[in-house]
Amino acid sequence: MYPDSIKSLIECFKFLPGIGEKTAERLAFSVLELEEEQTTFFADSIQEVKSKIHKCKNCNTLTEDELCFICNDDSRNRDILCVVEDTKNVFLFERLGMYHGMYHVLDGLINPLEGINPEDIGLDQLIERIHKEKFQEIIFAFKPSIEGETTALYIKKILEDMDITITRLASGVPIGADMEYVDSLTLERALNDRKEIE
Amino acid sequence: MYPDSIKSLIECFKFLPGIGEKTAERLAFSVLELEEEQTTFFADSIQEVKSKIHKCKNCNTLTEDELCFICNDDSRNRDILCVVEDTKNVFLFERLGMYHGMYHVLDGLINPLEGINPEDIGLDQLIERIHKEKFQEIIFAFKPSIEGETTALYIKKILEDMDITITRLASGVPIGADMEYVDSLTLERALNDRKEIE
Repeated sequence: MYPDSIKSLIECFKFLPGIGEKTAERLAFSVLELEEEQTTFFADSIQEVKSKIHKCKNCNTLTEDELCFICNDDSRNRDILCVVEDTKNVFLFERLGMYHGMYHVLDGLINPLEGINPEDIGLDQLIERIHKEKFQEIIFAFKPSIEGETTALYIKKILEDMDITITRLASGVPIGADMEYVDSLTLERALNDRKEIE
Repeated sequence: MYPDSIKSLIECFKFLPGIGEKTAERLAFSVLELEEEQTTFFADSIQEVKSKIHKCKNCNTLTEDELCFICNDDSRNRDILCVVEDTKNVFLFERLGMYHGMYHVLDGLINPLEGINPEDIGLDQLIERIHKEKFQEIIFAFKPSIEGETTALYIKKILEDMDITITRLASGVPIGADMEYVDSLTLERALNDRKEIE
């Protein structure tokens, strides 16, 4: 029913996660209403992002350069390493502006049920880096989940002979949450990890 | 903080209506995960849709040809014209599959508060077409709103000397709606337009 070029563009938007038929249609039609310079810019940006962006060879954060803006920054604290499951999380922490150490980005988390094993998420590179760079602390900043727990324990085991403090993010009741909407696993964790009020 | 090419792509997604900073970021990162053929197809589709799509010279529906698939279809009933405010609505009605007449697409609706006057929405072309094509019925399929009402009344007035039946879509309580969530204007219209049960 739609002209072919609109149909193609709808298909393209559906490549993106979380975009279904209806949203793809709405977005495709809204592209038609952009100025010509905008659509040219848009098309070029899609091509460029794909050709220019790659992983930092040290830590896997996405970058246009050989080393990312963190690894390139001499003012960062090189004693502490934050391990994340996705490059987006680096930017998430950087936006907070309160962490000044280094990062390492894994290719996701270990998930045997989905066939994602330790060798699939780039652990070799992480372990090699940890041996080389002599960190004093390693923070696992994975999402609180079975996969996050599994991955953290797996890496901790490999590192057990080394003299490194290994930590994870605190889990618990999110600030501002209504207690009745907090799931039981989170509540259990919050109770176990309770802190003394000083 | 983001590499330049990711920043550019985020800006591009923000050109699209309903896409804010967070969603644009999510979408830009997901483009990075597409295959290269997909991003090439995506970039090309954006360029193509802009260069190939234009308005049907008869009815303004978006098309790649001189005349759209409706105006080109000899089996359509040429006695009845459905006037819509947006090309998307043509596809909406076509998907229902129960309307077999012709369409005419306006450039939106009259809205004096936003400075959109009758001359801005392509009424001249519509009136000229109505004089030429001798329709028996004209349906206004505008969204139920002050602008829809204003536009319908304005056109009706221009056509008052002609022997044409002029109708509008029924308004009322949507099927499946909870009565308590129906707004009072809709309820008022539903009460005024009540139909005898036969």
